[in-house]
Amino acid sequence: MKIICLGTASCYPTSNRSVSCTAVRFEDGTVWIFDCGEGAQIQLQKSPVRPSRITKIFITHLHGDHLFGLPGLMCTLANMVPDRNDFTLEIYGPQGLRKFIRDTLILSRSALTYNYVVHELIPIAEQYPEDWNTWPADNLATGSLHPQEKQGKDITATNDLTWNVFDGQNVCVKAGALMHSIPSFGYVIAEQDEPGKLDAEYLKQLGVPPGPLYSRIKNGEAITLPSGKALDPLKVLGPPKRGRKITILGDTSDSFRMVDLAQSSDIILHEATLENSMEEKAIDMGHSTPKMAAQYAEKVGARVLMLYHFSQRYKTVLVNDTDLCVDTLLKEAQHELSTRNCPCKVFLAQDLMEVSVPRPSS
Amino acid sequence: MKIICLGTASCYPTSNRSVSCTAVRFEDGTVWIFDCGEGAQIQLQKSPVRPSRITKIFITHLHGDHLFGLPGLMCTLANMVPDRNDFTLEIYGPQGLRKFIRDTLILSRSALTYNYVVHELIPIAEQYPEDWNTWPADNLATGSLHPQEKQGKDITATNDLTWNVFDGQNVCVKAGALMHSIPSFGYVIAEQDEPGKLDAEYLKQLGVPPGPLYSRIKNGEAITLPSGKALDPLKVLGPPKRGRKITILGDTSDSFRMVDLAQSSDIILHEATLENSMEEKAIDMGHSTPKMAAQYAEKVGARVLMLYHFSQRYKTVLVNDTDLCVDTLLKEAQHELSTRNCPCKVFLAQDLMEVSVPRPSS
Ligand SMILES: [Zn+2]
Ligand SMILES: [Zn+2]
Ligand SMILES: [Zn+2]
Ligand SMILES: [Zn+2]
Repeated sequence: MKIICLGTASCYPTSNRSVSCTAVRFEDGTVWIFDCGEGAQIQLQKSPVRPSRITKIFITHLHGDHLFGLPGLMCTLANMVPDRNDFTLEIYGPQGLRKFIRDTLILSRSALTYNYVVHELIPIAEQYPEDWNTWPADNLATGSLHPQEKQGKDITATNDLTWNVFDGQNVCVKAGALMHSIPSFGYVIAEQDEPGKLDAEYLKQLGVPPGPLYSRIKNGEAITLPSGKALDPLKVLGPPKRGRKITILGDTSDSFRMVDLAQSSDIILHEATLENSMEEKAIDMGHSTPKMAAQYAEKVGARVLMLYHFSQRYKTVLVNDTDLCVDTLLKEAQHELSTRNCPCKVFLAQDLMEVSVPRPSS
Repeated sequence: MKIICLGTASCYPTSNRSVSCTAVRFEDGTVWIFDCGEGAQIQLQKSPVRPSRITKIFITHLHGDHLFGLPGLMCTLANMVPDRNDFTLEIYGPQGLRKFIRDTLILSRSALTYNYVVHELIPIAEQYPEDWNTWPADNLATGSLHPQEKQGKDITATNDLTWNVFDGQNVCVKAGALMHSIPSFGYVIAEQDEPGKLDAEYLKQLGVPPGPLYSRIKNGEAITLPSGKALDPLKVLGPPKRGRKITILGDTSDSFRMVDLAQSSDIILHEATLENSMEEKAIDMGHSTPKMAAQYAEKVGARVLMLYHFSQRYKTVLVNDTDLCVDTLLKEAQHELSTRNCPCKVFLAQDLMEVSVPRPSS
């Protein structure tokens, strides 16, 4: 699994950072996109990601810097990839996303060469800001579907505040609630553990012939040997290969509802919009500081913390004496982790960076 | 007046062309934007245009490559320019635009630091494609306004197929109907003519003292000289300065409903999506060839024709032997004009190009 950063700025794009968009590429080439700010399709062109391999798009929240590139990307996927009536692009995100996509595609009369479906995550009451009802409330997609749209499902939270987003054969995706100025979610992509290798040599000695028995043993079944004795599968199985866990959080001023869900993540993408000294302002605006992100990474026991979604205040290249450097955010996170003797590694995301997520040694 | 090309590609952006967006900057620094494809705000950053000087945005039609950058630009204008409650951004475009903007800004919960208003151009029956009703019909903005939205007006065509879009002190904007796969418009920006210079020396000889009389003469009034004789204002007035006329057309496969409106344009921006040999396909898709654009420019007696909205088939830099060069489109337009002995100059738009529109010598 590889993470490819396509946009790492908050709010609006700059000359060297596009707004929020992250790709996750699997070993078989399949690509999932997380958030889709304006310009995502342009960033994709500059990256090694093949648009035709995108099968799923996950949106953390409906702010424009995470969303406004989605209609353009969907149209360009249709332009770049020939008719594939058998393909359905699956899109997941907060309630309101279905209406956003349907309205933008219908008003622009954008026909697609593939089908799409939007599954909506229904927020819990605490995710809504106090002033939520002061705005016109109309976030449900009504009326006819887009010609290439299939009816999606609504996903509600379980009692332990988990949204079961997707359950695949090798990987599942769950979402959790974040606190922000509008309902925001984090996604946890968890690979299944794989059983360890069979000790074929030893099995041969025990008189077990290669065949269907092997896979039953691999699945942990206790079988009876030709000698009549029971075989403990653990005796002939190597250690299981632990699945990887990637946690990608949307904008947040409080990620602690997602501690259990993200436990033992191999990598966490957490926003760090403003520096520690601006914590009050950051929280007020629904955002985090490096310290807050580091504390979260420690709490969930993450191996690696990747910070992103930086305010425009922080420059990558310092031109003026008064310029603030984005490295400040890195140092603040490092300091927090080392103060806590936390072994988690931390780095700053930058556009078009590729990060391999190796399997953890179990 | 200056035209600044911000996006000159059709359909989707490439490494050297962004999708449709054109700025017109007036002598006083005011900027108007015509179309707003995805990435417009990024192109603006690279250009000399100051976002705070944008007062009006005109959309030719609702296809994504002309529209999907608008919500992002509106949000970024709010982020870059401090509160200006006294300012209202005026937006003009086909029916459906009001709903597009309202839905995208409300669903993304984007508060603005200024007001905005959307005035919709109501298409005529011929602008709708035959299959119009096969799609869900819901392009009217219903429900509550966005918190910073003011109620716009609906603009219908006059009997001579003119939409009177804006009537200012020095400049007016009219729109005309184009044929495309969805309702599409062209905009004509016409400066008022200015009266010529007074011959102050001669007036002195005639015994007319500088003062209020001067402006009456300048306005063409016949006044009585101290000698008792009537003064013909034309005798003391230089030639009037003719106002400039800029015509910016949206996607079109037939611009001939806009011949009268665009008559004697100083510059015309006309799409040339595909080469002459692909005329049938171009028209089928609602687009034009260089030949069609040249014929239009001749018909309206334009001084300059600027081609834009090029298909991705045509490359600026030829890398592979099979690459088609965008210069082909230029040559085809030049050939058509010279065949017709038309003195109109023609060139290809490119991103971030700035074109001065000088006053015509009258
Ligand atoms: Zn954000
Ligand atoms: Zn946000
Ligand atoms: Zn177009
Ligand atoms: Zn079009």
